[in-house]
Parts: sequence; C-alpha cells; structure tokens
Amino acid sequence: MPDPVHPAMQKIPIGIDAIGMRRETDSMGAVDVPANRYWGAQTQRSLAHFAIGDDLMPKALHHAYGYVKKAAALVNGASGHLAHWKAKAICRAADEAIAGKLDDHFPLYVWQSGSGTQTNMNLNEVLSNRAIQLLGGEIGSKMPVHPNDDVNMGQSSNDTFPTAMHIAAILELENRLLPRAEALADAIEAKAEEWIDVVKIGRTHLQDAVPLTVGQEWSGYARQIRDALAGVRRAEGALFELAVGGAAVGTGLNAPPNFGADMAAKIAELTERPFVTAPNKFAAQASLDAMVCAMASLRGLAVALMKIANDMRWLASGPRCGLGELILPENEPGSSIMPGKINPTQSEAMVMVCIQVIGEDTATAFAGSQGNFELNTTRPIVINNFLHSARILGDASEKMRVYQIEGAVLNHAAIKAFLARSLMLATALTPLLGYDKAAIIVHKAASENLSLKEAALASGFISEKLYDETVDPQKMVGPVGALSV
Amino acid sequence: MPDPVHPAMQKIPIGIDAIGMRRETDSMGAVDVPANRYWGAQTQRSLAHFAIGDDLMPKALHHAYGYVKKAAALVNGASGHLAHWKAKAICRAADEAIAGKLDDHFPLYVWQSGSGTQTNMNLNEVLSNRAIQLLGGEIGSKMPVHPNDDVNMGQSSNDTFPTAMHIAAILELENRLLPRAEALADAIEAKAEEWIDVVKIGRTHLQDAVPLTVGQEWSGYARQIRDALAGVRRAEGALFELAVGGAAVGTGLNAPPNFGADMAAKIAELTERPFVTAPNKFAAQASLDAMVCAMASLRGLAVALMKIANDMRWLASGPRCGLGELILPENEPGSSIMPGKINPTQSEAMVMVCIQVIGEDTATAFAGSQGNFELNTTRPIVINNFLHSARILGDASEKMRVYQIEGAVLNHAAIKAFLARSLMLATALTPLLGYDKAAIIVHKAASENLSLKEAALASGFISEKLYDETVDPQKMVGPVGALSV
Amino acid sequence: MPDPVHPAMQKIPIGIDAIGMRRETDSMGAVDVPANRYWGAQTQRSLAHFAIGDDLMPKALHHAYGYVKKAAALVNGASGHLAHWKAKAICRAADEAIAGKLDDHFPLYVWQSGSGTQTNMNLNEVLSNRAIQLLGGEIGSKMPVHPNDDVNMGQSSNDTFPTAMHIAAILELENRLLPRAEALADAIEAKAEEWIDVVKIGRTHLQDAVPLTVGQEWSGYARQIRDALAGVRRAEGALFELAVGGAAVGTGLNAPPNFGADMAAKIAELTERPFVTAPNKFAAQASLDAMVCAMASLRGLAVALMKIANDMRWLASGPRCGLGELILPENEPGSSIMPGKINPTQSEAMVMVCIQVIGEDTATAFAGSQGNFELNTTRPIVINNFLHSARILGDASEKMRVYQIEGAVLNHAAIKAFLARSLMLATALTPLLGYDKAAIIVHKAASENLSLKEAALASGFISEKLYDETVDPQKMVGPVGALSV
Amino acid sequence: MPDPVHPAMQKIPIGIDAIGMRRETDSMGAVDVPANRYWGAQTQRSLAHFAIGDDLMPKALHHAYGYVKKAAALVNGASGHLAHWKAKAICRAADEAIAGKLDDHFPLYVWQSGSGTQTNMNLNEVLSNRAIQLLGGEIGSKMPVHPNDDVNMGQSSNDTFPTAMHIAAILELENRLLPRAEALADAIEAKAEEWIDVVKIGRTHLQDAVPLTVGQEWSGYARQIRDALAGVRRAEGALFELAVGGAAVGTGLNAPPNFGADMAAKIAELTERPFVTAPNKFAAQASLDAMVCAMASLRGLAVALMKIANDMRWLASGPRCGLGELILPENEPGSSIMPGKINPTQSEAMVMVCIQVIGEDTATAFAGSQGNFELNTTRPIVINNFLHSARILGDASEKMRVYQIEGAVLNHAAIKAFLARSLMLATALTPLLGYDKAAIIVHKAASENLSLKEAALASGFISEKLYDETVDPQKMVGPVGALSV
Repeated sequence: MPDPVHPAMQKIPIGIDAIGMRRETDSMGAVDVPANRYWGAQTQRSLAHFAIGDDLMPKALHHAYGYVKKAAALVNGASGHLAHWKAKAICRAADEAIAGKLDDHFPLYVWQSGSGTQTNMNLNEVLSNRAIQLLGGEIGSKMPVHPNDDVNMGQSSNDTFPTAMHIAAILELENRLLPRAEALADAIEAKAEEWIDVVKIGRTHLQDAVPLTVGQEWSGYARQIRDALAGVRRAEGALFELAVGGAAVGTGLNAPPNFGADMAAKIAELTERPFVTAPNKFAAQASLDAMVCAMASLRGLAVALMKIANDMRWLASGPRCGLGELILPENEPGSSIMPGKINPTQSEAMVMVCIQVIGEDTATAFAGSQGNFELNTTRPIVINNFLHSARILGDASEKMRVYQIEGAVLNHAAIKAFLARSLMLATALTPLLGYDKAAIIVHKAASENLSLKEAALASGFISEKLYDETVDPQKMVGPVGALSV
Repeated sequence: MPDPVHPAMQKIPIGIDAIGMRRETDSMGAVDVPANRYWGAQTQRSLAHFAIGDDLMPKALHHAYGYVKKAAALVNGASGHLAHWKAKAICRAADEAIAGKLDDHFPLYVWQSGSGTQTNMNLNEVLSNRAIQLLGGEIGSKMPVHPNDDVNMGQSSNDTFPTAMHIAAILELENRLLPRAEALADAIEAKAEEWIDVVKIGRTHLQDAVPLTVGQEWSGYARQIRDALAGVRRAEGALFELAVGGAAVGTGLNAPPNFGADMAAKIAELTERPFVTAPNKFAAQASLDAMVCAMASLRGLAVALMKIANDMRWLASGPRCGLGELILPENEPGSSIMPGKINPTQSEAMVMVCIQVIGEDTATAFAGSQGNFELNTTRPIVINNFLHSARILGDASEKMRVYQIEGAVLNHAAIKAFLARSLMLATALTPLLGYDKAAIIVHKAASENLSLKEAALASGFISEKLYDETVDPQKMVGPVGALSV
Repeated sequence: MPDPVHPAMQKIPIGIDAIGMRRETDSMGAVDVPANRYWGAQTQRSLAHFAIGDDLMPKALHHAYGYVKKAAALVNGASGHLAHWKAKAICRAADEAIAGKLDDHFPLYVWQSGSGTQTNMNLNEVLSNRAIQLLGGEIGSKMPVHPNDDVNMGQSSNDTFPTAMHIAAILELENRLLPRAEALADAIEAKAEEWIDVVKIGRTHLQDAVPLTVGQEWSGYARQIRDALAGVRRAEGALFELAVGGAAVGTGLNAPPNFGADMAAKIAELTERPFVTAPNKFAAQASLDAMVCAMASLRGLAVALMKIANDMRWLASGPRCGLGELILPENEPGSSIMPGKINPTQSEAMVMVCIQVIGEDTATAFAGSQGNFELNTTRPIVINNFLHSARILGDASEKMRVYQIEGAVLNHAAIKAFLARSLMLATALTPLLGYDKAAIIVHKAASENLSLKEAALASGFISEKLYDETVDPQKMVGPVGALSV
Repeated sequence: MPDPVHPAMQKIPIGIDAIGMRRETDSMGAVDVPANRYWGAQTQRSLAHFAIGDDLMPKALHHAYGYVKKAAALVNGASGHLAHWKAKAICRAADEAIAGKLDDHFPLYVWQSGSGTQTNMNLNEVLSNRAIQLLGGEIGSKMPVHPNDDVNMGQSSNDTFPTAMHIAAILELENRLLPRAEALADAIEAKAEEWIDVVKIGRTHLQDAVPLTVGQEWSGYARQIRDALAGVRRAEGALFELAVGGAAVGTGLNAPPNFGADMAAKIAELTERPFVTAPNKFAAQASLDAMVCAMASLRGLAVALMKIANDMRWLASGPRCGLGELILPENEPGSSIMPGKINPTQSEAMVMVCIQVIGEDTATAFAGSQGNFELNTTRPIVINNFLHSARILGDASEKMRVYQIEGAVLNHAAIKAFLARSLMLATALTPLLGYDKAAIIVHKAASENLSLKEAALASGFISEKLYDETVDPQKMVGPVGALSV
C-alpha cells in the first residue's frame, strides 16, 4: 500500500549513537538488545539460546542474503506490493549489507535454527532498523519498515536461506576458489613445460618403474586439477537454481505469481551470474542436494590436491636420505631442535586442508540426508562447511603456488643417478626378448648387484649394440610434445 | 610375427578334464595349480598370499576385462603385431570371459596388489590357457599363446585395470542402476500425478506448516531422484575416458603408436558405449579421480533416496499412534512378538543401503587420495566399492518401487483431519493483517485450545466472511498443474 | 650454566610500548615483525606463508603449551641445566600464557607445519622475548633468554606439541565437556524420575508397539549419555601419557636422562591431573593414536546425543499434526512467514553439532593414519578438530539442558489418547492365546476399524473379564522402580 | 505346560528328503517354500522382498543366534514355561545352528527389516521345523514346536538380535582378530629386538632427522598395535552386556521375571565368555552405542596398521631408486609388463583393508545415530560391517605377518650410507654450540655440498676431537635396552 506522503531518505552514516540497551519486541514479547546494534528481538534471543562454540554464520552468507533482500525490495517495489520509498530504503540498507558494512550487526552462531530462520530474521531486523533510521523513524518501532511484512515480503526463511546459500557458494567459487586453483594449475603446467624433456625414473607401487619425463609427470598434476575444476563448474549448474518463490513449503503461498522467476532474474542482474528459478520448489526447499553435489566437487579437488601435495613432498624428501629429486623453496626453519632442517610445510598444510575438506564433505552428505518432509533443518552446517572448505582450498592453492611451486627446482644430479641405476629399463627389452628372458636378466642383475647392461650382456640374450639401441631412456618416454592438461 | 603355418582353432567346450594339480610357471618359478582350472602360477600365488575375508574381485570387472583383452587382440591383430590366428583364439576366449562363462576361473580376492596386477595376470593366464586349449596346445606351456607376450601385448596392468574399471562401472550404471532408479522416479511421479489435488498439511521442522498437495510433495521426491541421476550421467563423462595406451607409467612404452586411441575405439565398438582415449595418461593412471567423482554421484543419489525413504516411513507411521497419512503395502509380518505388526521395511532396507553407500564413498575418496607418483595402488577397493554401491542402490530402488511405492495408498481421513486442525493456515492471514496480528490469533488458539477460525473471529481482526474466503487450504497450495520433475 | 651475577626480574606489565616494526632474526636471516608483539622471526614467516582461511590454532592449545614451557623451565632449572633466574623469568611468562594473557601474541593458523613447529616456536619466541623484557634485556636480542637454547631446552616440537595437545584435550574434557554433558544426563534423569509412572505407547520401526513409561524411555537417554561419557573417560587414559622426553625422534637426544618422567610429573603437579610419561616415545611421537581414540569417544557421545535430540523433536512434533506427546519450551518465534510457529531448535542445533563432530572425527581418523616414520605431520588439524568437537558438544549439551530439557512438559492427553488406540496391546494376549490367534484379532481390528477390545471379544477367543485383566497397559511396563542410568 | 506323554526325539540327519515346494504359513497367509529347506513363510517372503545385492547376513551371526535360542530353550525349560522335551529338541537344533550345520537354511540378505526380525524368524522357523522333524512331526505344521510360541518364547527380535550381535562380535574378536593381531605385534616386536642395535637415520616430515635404531622404530609399531588392541578389549566391556530380557521395547513384557539375567548367565556358560545382562534395556535396545564404540576400536587398529604398512613399503621402496633400507620377501611377480618387478603388495592389501574399515566405521557411526524411540532399525548393516571389518583386519594381519614381516631383512649397506650422509647429526652439537651456530654449520654443509664434519671443522666452532666425540650416531639413540611395547 504505497504512501503518497512519505518520509525522505536521509544521509545517515552506519551506526547508532546510543549506549546501554534498547527494548525490541517480537511476537513473543519484549527483549533488550544492545542500543548500538541494529538487530532486534529475535536475533537477541538466538544469541542467548545458541552460544555454542565460536562458530559464527559466515560473513559471506550475510552478504549474499543482502542480494536477496535487495532483489525482493526491487521486485516488490516494481510490482506495487511495496511502497517505492520503502523499497529504496531497504535497498540502501541491503547494499550496505552486501558491501560488508553491517557485518558487526550479524552476530549469530552457526548452531541455531536448522532452517536459518534466525539469520533471516537477523537480516530482516537489521535492514528494517537501518531503513527506519534512514527514513528518520524510531529504531525498534518497526515503523515504517517492518522486518516481516516489508523486508521479508513474499519470502520465507525456507526459500530465501537456500537462495542465499547458493549465491554465497557461487560467489566464493567464482571469486576465490576457481581463480586460485586455476592459477595453481597454470603454475604446475608451466613447470611441466619447463621440464618436459627431463627424463626421470618412474615409480609405481613406490618401486622403480620405467622412465618418463618430469614434465609428463607434472602434466598429470595439472590435468588432475583441471579435471577437478571442471567438476566444480558442472556442480555450479544446480547452484544457479534458486529456491526463492517457494515461500514456506514450496507452494509460493503469499508470494505474488512469478515472484520466483522475477527474483531469480533480479539476483542474476545484481550479481551478474546466471541464476534462474528452481524448476521444482519442493525439491529445492526440502533437500540440500545441490549443495551436497557441489561439496562433492570440492572433495574431488581435495582428493587430487592431496595426491599432488604428497608427491611433491616425497620427491623432495631428503635432502640426503630420501628421493631428493625436487628442491622446494626454503621458507622457514623447520625444527626447534634440529638446526638447518627444512620441511615441505606447504605440502603439509595442503594435506591437512584436503583431509579437512574430506571430513567436512562427510558431514555435509550426512546433513543432506537428514531432511524431513518440506524442509531440511541442517542448512547452517552445510553452508558453513561448504564456504569453509572452498575458502581453505582456495587459500591453500594460492599459498602452495607462491611458496612451493613457483620456486621449485630440480636436482638434476639425483634424477640422473636414479635413472642410471634402475633395472626396470629392462622393460624395453621385452618386445625383443619376451617377458621371461627379460625377467631373467633383471633377476640376475638384482641378485648379483650388476647394472642392467652388465646382466643383459652376461645373459647372452642380446648384443651390446642392440642393447644400447634398445635401452635408451630418452626413447622410452614416448612423444612429449603435446600434453593435454 | 604372423606364422604362415598355424594351428587351427578347435571346438572345445569350456573346462579341463583333469584332476589333481598341474605345474605352472612364472618368472619366479613353478607353482602347482588345480588341474581343472585355466589359471596359472601368478593367480595361484595370489590365492595363497591374499586369502583375506570373503571378498572376491567383482565378476563384472572380469567381464569388463574381457572386452579389454578382446579389443587388444583385435587391435594387435589388425596392426600385425599379433598373428591373426592367435588373435582369433584370444578373442574366442575373451568372449567367453565377457559372457561370464569363465567366472569359475577368476578366483582372486579384492585385497591383493593395489594395481590389480594379479587380476590382470589372472585374465592373461586364463585366456592364454584357454586359447592354447582351443588351438590344441598344452595347457601351461605358454605356447603358442603367451600370457604376457600375447594376451597382454601392448598393455600393462597399470593402464588396463583402470580401463576395465571404467567399462565395468559404465555397464553397471547403464544396464542396472540408471534404469532401476529411473523406474523408481517414474513410479513416484505417477503417484504425484495421481495425488496432485490432495491437499495436506505441510511440515517444516517436524512442525505443522502451511498446506501443499501430496502430489506436490511427491513431485519433489521424483525431482530429487532425477537430479541425482543427472549427476550420475554427468559423472559418466570422465568414465568414458580410458587409460589404456599409457602402458606402465603413462608414456605408452612398448605399445604401438595410436594404440590407446585404437583400443578405445574398439572397446566403444564392442560395448556400444562412447568410450574415448584419455587425453592425459599420467593423470588417468596415477589417479582414480574419475572413479571418486562417479562414486560421489552415487552418494548424491543415496542422499536423496534416504530422505525419500525416511519421509515415506514417517508418513506411514502409526498406524494409530503416528502420522498415518500414508498406507504402505503389507509385505510381511513385522514382529516375532507383537502380532499383527507391519513395518516399513522397504524404507528401512533403503536407509541402510544409503548409509552403506555413504560409507563406501568415504572409503573411495580416501583411497583416491592415496596415490603416489605414477600409480594409485588402491584400485581394487575402489572398483569393489563402486560396483557394490551401484548394485545395491539399483536393486533397492527396484524393490522399493515394487514393494513400497506401487502399492501405496493414502489415508484420506487422516490427511483431512490434520489439515483441519492446523493453526498454520493463519499464514494466509498475514498479507491481510500483518505478521504480528496473525501471530496473536495463533497464540490465542494454541493457548485456549481453539480452532484457528474461532480464535480469529474472537480476535476481532477479521470478519467470518473474509476469514472463510482467505483461509482456504485449496487456495493456499498454488497452481498444481505444471510440476517439473 | 647458572650465572652468579644475573639481572633481576622487574615488574613490567604485559605489552610492548612501540610502534612500527622490529627486526627479528632466526637461522634463515632477518624478518620485520610488529613492534608491539612479542613474537619473532619464525612466527612472522609463518603468518606470511600460511594465511589460509580464518582458522587460528586454538587458544586452549597455547595455554596448555604454557604448562609445558613452565614445567621445562622448572625441570631444567632444578637439574641445573638452566640458570635459576632464567627459569624464573620463563615461568613468569609461561604463567601469563597459561592464563590467556598473551593470547594476542599467538596469531598462527591451524594450517602450518604439520608438526606444530611454528606454534612451538611462537611460544618459544614470545616467552623468550617476554622473559627478556622482564629481565630488562632488549627484545629480539635473544639475550639473555634464547628461544631455542633456553625456552625450548631439552625439547623438540615433535615431543612437546603432542604433549600440549594432550594437556589441552584433558583440560577441555575435564573442565567443560564432561561436567556439561553430565549435567545434561542429570537433567534427563530427573525427568525420567518425574515421569516414571506415565505409561505411553512404545514405538518400534516408527510403528505402534507395546507400552512403556515415559520415565523408562528417558532413563534410556540418560544411560546412553552416561555410557558415552564412560567411554570418554576410558579414552582419557591414553591422553594422560605424554610424549615429552622423546625429543626429535623419540630417543631423547639432547634431553637429560629422566627428563620425560620429570616433565610428566611436573605437568601433573601444575595441572593437578594424573599425567605420566609415555612408555614408548616412538609410538607417542610417530602416531596420533591416543587422539584418534579420544576423538572416537566424542563421536560416541555425538551418536548418542543425536538419537536423543531426534527423539525429542519427534515426540514434540505437531503441535496438532504430529505426535505431540512432549511440549518443549517456546524459546523464540519459529518462522519469518508463519506466525505463531514454534520449532524444536535446540534439537536442531544439537543434531547439527553431532553431525559436525562425526565429520570432524572422520577427518581425525584419516589424519591419524597418515604418519610417516618418526612423525605424523597432521597434528594441528587433529587438535583443532578435537578441541572444536569437544567444545561444541559441551556447549550444546548445556544449551539443550537449559533451553529444552528443564522446561519440557508432557502432553498427558495426547499420551493417553495414543495409548488407548494402539492395537499392539494385543501382545499381552499371546502368552494366553498364542501368536497366531492374537494376530487374527489385530488384523480384524485393523481391517474393520475396531478397538482392540472389540475385536478381541468379537473373535470369541477370550472373555471380557480375562481381556480386561490381561490387557492392562499399567501391567505391561514391568517394574519401574530401579532404573539403571 | 509340560506334556507328560510326549514324542521321543529321533536320530534324524540334517536335511529334508523332498523336492519341489512346500506350503508354509504365517499370520499373513500361506507361502510356498523349497521343500528341502527348513525355513518357513516369513523367510521366504523376505527372500522375495529383499533380494538386494549379494550381501547375505553373516554366517557368524546365525551361529551366535543359535546360542540365544539354545539358552532360551534351557532357561524356559528350567523355569517350566517350556516342556522339557520341546526344550531338548530345540537345543539339539540350536547346537546344529551353532556348529554351522544349518548354514544352508539361513539364506537372508543383510538389507531387510532393520530390526533383524526376519533373521530372527528365519532362526525360529528353521529351529522349529528341525525340532519338529526330530520329534517326528510334520514339517511346516508348527506342531509340536511353534516358531513364535516355543522357539521365540520370552523373546523379541528387538532384544535377541542385538544379543546375537554382541555374541557374534565377541567371538570374532576373541577367536580371530585379537590372536591374529597379537601375533602380528609379536612378530614385529621380535624384529624390533633383533634390530635393536642397528642405528639408522630418523625421518620427520619425510626429511632427514636425527638417528634412532631400527629396533626403536619397530618397537613403536608393536606398541601402536598393542595400544590399539587394548582399546578393542576395553570396547568389549559394553559388548558383554546383553539386551535379551527387554522383550519388544525394553520392559520385558511377556518374559518371566529374571529372564534377562538367566539368559545372560546361560549364554555366558555356553560360550565361556563373561556376558551379563544389560543394566538398562531401553538404552540397550534403542541404541547401537556399544557396537559403534567397538567399531571405533577396530578403526583405531586400522589407523595404526595403516601407518605401519605405509612405513614398511616406503622403507622398502626402490630397490635402487628409493629408500631401500628394508627388503621385503618376494612373494610374486609384480608386473605384467615390467619383468623382475617386485612390489610391497602385502602393505598395499593392508592399506586397502584399513581404508575399508575406516569407511565401514563411518557407515556404522551414521547408522548408530539413526535410532528412533524404542529401536534402531539399522542393526543388520551394523553387524555386517563390524564382522566384516574385524574379519579382514584379522586376516590381513595374519597375511602381513607371514608374508611380509617374518621374512623381512635389512639392507645394512643402505642404512649405513644414509646415516653417514645426513646433516641432522648436527643436532648433537647444539647443547655445545647453541642452535644458531649449529644451524650455520648445516647451512654451510648443504650449500657447499660438504659433509657435516667438513663443514663443522671449517666453521672453526669446534675441534675435530670434540666433534668426533660428540657427533656419534651410536650415542645419539639413547638407551635401547628397555623398550615398552
């Protein structure tokens, strides 16, 4: 019901110049809240009832929720359900939330209402009070901008919280994880190209195998990451589908027709990401399947990165009593007791990050399975784990790139020495001699501590000339020109 | 080196008419094997060293490996590396493996060489001896068909085992899981359509919420399954990429140029599935990322099915002291002590299946992270868990469809009674009265044990006429015509 | 080497009155650190290299490490290896660390050196500089108290970090988790006693079963918690064993004889907990098995609490369209859209906490399996997950007790109504009639919508008198006097 | 009600000499079953409804259930509730079940009724029919031994299935896992003693560290296993508590007073294990906490064994391009393509077993959390995973002992060469020179590729004499006499 004579929006900086407590109310009665905070009664109740650990709902979720509230104000304003001047004030407040300027007013814990209702109400209360302030009203009065009737208009926590989850997830992936992990793959690929001709001994079962080049080996690392990131991008497909418009149980009750589609379009416009309205709101609200799927894609990345991090620290093991083929940058002293020790700490941090992601993925899948009827009440834990996993994977990718990959060099002497010693070059003899005779040569070399060549010639199966032509590591690595990473 | 004068292939039925033991040899010496089995020395060694539990390598993997060996024989025959008559005999034997006719000759355990080498050798030995038999040779002589030099020509366990894994995985998905889970979704969708107009109370947080129709609720179930199956199909993309051609470490050593591409094309032709050669063999052999990703898609299905199975048993809870909105088929007596008890056992079985899949997925991801250098030596556990999870999900989907979904009926009386009692229909009043007044009405009804209408009229906020027009469950469920499942 | 003429310790409050940066050095060179912080070069390097996420090493670990450093100063002082005046200054600084007064000087991330070396050095640097300050020296000069040679004397990160882990774990369990979870069990037991005579219908498979009392049901909840806590206490056994004394690899190199035993005794004295020296330092340093085991005991508690939390919210489901036997306190409005809705949010928070603990347990077990040779480099993730899980379980137990259990009341009307309707009371007839006849009665009642009594009498199997004597719910619950919880 | 004139028990061998089908009935009607099987209608129904995968309920569970049924017959016979001649016949049949002689008559799947009711009925039906046969009655007639009224007398699936679970678990642990894992620890300890004086370089962070002896290192392995087994034994405590006596919901309905205690005493007598009656039947039947706890103890063993298996294969890596300090037995050829390759396959199998156990533990904990009210309906999955994990851990322990540990030898040359090369011996200098000077020496040696001694002498910090006295690896390993394993 638009109001022809309405208050003008004023330029008031963020903040409430008050001390002590302020009385706020909700449908259950009055509650005192800190006078210098925008939040209202329901936020305050949640703070008291859910002070569990130190885990606060992620800031990024609040910023994403800002987009939801802004989009709703715009859509409701455009459709005439919400007075334009109210919509404008809510938008201003929502912009501040999006920009992180109201972060201090979003104090709630992860462990709360499983629907995220309390965080939705935290948003509604803060934006309502901030809008009231901008419009010259009395904070806490719910006039002229009501947290439920205006800020939450056409919405439920049940459809907006998963909407904010998807937005937050996409922004974290697009803005941080994907570019950082891509940069890691790029750095590894650059090394692969640099080392494409360096022949080394391969290792399978931790045992000496046939040769390949360092560049080939590292091309596999880069490829693993790129494949994993392709998986992340595929998983984004379902995250682009938004639940908003379903209202309390998916039917859209109290929301205008087309509200869901309008909201998705508006959010797409505001975020510049291709969000659409979810085709079946009952699935979108009762399940967290899209999040579980997206989390699995992060786990896929973790699985790949763990292998890579492990390989690098093993290749760098030593320096004198290990494999020692790779020399990692010396970033910090490694021991409080052993002077001069240097450790592969970036790999260690990455391994821990990957294990953590795998654990958080387990929790996420478990949570995703626990829905009942029209709602899954484990949303806070799911978004918290997802954003956390994405964040630490992205950060660790960046740190590993800068502090481990870019400065890594090869120990060519060690690489050559191993290559010369291996008996598995005998594999090149099998097309010529057959598996059984080649095996006899290897067993002879091993048991008599001979070089492969010595054993081969002693066996009488092959001439020196033919041996030298055949057992050439350079020829054994195949074409190295066109690596697909 | 084709042989102009070669033995003719004979029609000899499967089986070795011998008793006692036969001497077989490998590069480590002689071993006695059961005389009526085709396997050789390496299989026999594995049987002794790895008798751990009762877990045998899945039959389906051996069938898939049959395609690999047949394709190799055809490719090597076509390229002239393998005599045509040898190739033909190997193909015959491989066809028998594919058809499951040699299953008794594949006795190895899951817990063995982490590369699957022993199973590859089991195939090589069995096909070699069977081919020798078909060609009139002496079983165990390795003449004229050698297990390594002929059957394994151009191959390594390191590239063929993951190839067989992918083939087995695709065939299990395409032939069993996907059609069975699709049929389950179809059956649920049919119920959704049948019940599209039956208005019921919604439940969020297990608490009474606003109405929806049973059909809407079940459309969400169908949609969840379909979304999960779309995820499975996306994950198949990476499974279609085959490692074969990489040989021992990914370089293709001892394999002819283009062997990988030729093999993939041949396998695609034989299986009628779009297999291609993996673009980077180092990643394809050193990681199990494609399997980890595919397993995650099964887990996604499990997460969805668990929610659905739980909902159904809760909706059917009672019959007299629970929700009782749904009546499941009575398949069997439910109790050894309580006469007449009927339990939602299909849901229980499905829940257990889903939990098992989630556990096996955890093991798979863990295993996938444990590769080192050019190989991941946890392949047997990965393929065993994958095939097992796919199998039980498919079978449980079928059983649930037949024994729980198709015969389910609604308890219309219970549904109506609940709908009439709920106070949450008050939500329809909020656009009219605002949230706060509607809440006053609900609190009044609850505390004074009134019906919602009684409390609404007593509040004075609304007339009876307006109330009756507004609070109409039929109007609260939105448009029900176009469900996207 | 005690110094006869030594500087006096001064009363200087915590804090460095300086701005800008200060130059600190370590074995790799110089690094600028914030001038108002006590930390040195290695801490600063770690801050740069490991800024991954927002996860900081738990405060509680630093406090526990304070005990280690204090104990070492005392033991080294007593043995004459460390000058008494140095020991005294280190003790003073360590006391401040224990009390949490130096928390701002422990800024490091969880994701760092897997041995925790950087956190050990953080402690060494801060206590060294604080001791230098107290002794009037120049901060950063390492004189007269050197971070490695004095504060870390006789120690390695490899033995002290797990020692600090165990101390921190025990203190968290003893001071927070165990009392809070015990209090929860007490509160549940009080309800069990209060409701010991209230007969209700039992439910198995979610289906109506035979009766029990509410008190019996709740006695099971209390017992589950107490059993789980007994498991936690059993797991403490291994936590009381301390690695310190093993030095870098377990041999005790550079530590005086008996250092391990002396340290454990001193730590036991300081903390008033029965710590002892680990009998095999190689196991104690190379593994995290004691932590994995302790974490499993937390998971055991989570598994129990999850069942209890779920039961309570299901028993309270409704209020009008669910089971509704239990009425939970109304803590906050439950919905932003549905007025008057109240949700079982404490149960929801607890369920999420339990799922998180289960996920963190998975990560912990994974990490525990990844040791190599003389060290497991996943210690930070393990202690972080352990302390976090213990913390949120303890806090959630307290919140659930206060906000869900203590104010819960029964809906006697609903309980009675269900009891009267159930057909499973027929079980009482089976000793009299046999299972098959009792089943006939139940089927008759169900299919003809009769009460059990009506069906029983109609069956002709039993007289009314005998029926009334036999089918008496009060008699069916057994003796309720002596519950073991 | 004992019958004075009763049929005599005859000596009839196991087996039914019939072909085709036989009609059996239960409370839902008639079902045809194979005429040569003892099972009845409910087993047959279950076979049809739950043919999911190939997972059959473990044989060991049926044997354990045999003890329950025998104990019940004895207790009910002694109390006069069951005629002695019936009891005797049931006992005879139960003895056959215990001995595994009726295994072919227990065909049911794991995925079935979550209470295990169908397996309880399978036992009831088979023992009933076998007893009827022994007594000369008509199979399928339920006369004179009724499956429910006689074989199941005083029992419910709800209390007997978890009882059988506990018995089966204890027997598997005591008879197989514990002795096999102890034998593995013994074998490792024997190696530790054999190699107690062999000094080798330690490795932390995969990097060279200070020395220890091989015996010290291996003492840690043995200790880890022993600690883990102590955890398994602690977990047995709760398994010794039996639910039987609780009947359907824990109240003991229809069971005579003291039935639970009598049953536990009888089972203890029959199995010679200290079983007792569970103090709180509501917890014992509604939860699976004791199983979850026991499973965690298996996981603890898996975590320890995984570290040990990994260490061994890394120590044996090479033979020429790895660490190569350990030489494992050559059990089988390692490669189908690389002749002469030997791989650490026992470690690989053990690693896979450990990962599988960790995954099955995750499933078990998840299942354990999913109870509702008076029952947890995930029992079959829990016992199946538990018995499977215990089995493969036990078998793999035996195989690793026989095929990897007992034949392992050291490569003394490699061990000595590494020891001579390491720079970390500099740690012995720090008590003399301080950390900083020792670090200068190490950096000098590393950067100039000097030996530690060369760098130390060149530094001028120490004389050759003092260096030689101080840097002596033999002195750096501490006392090696009294290892606690």
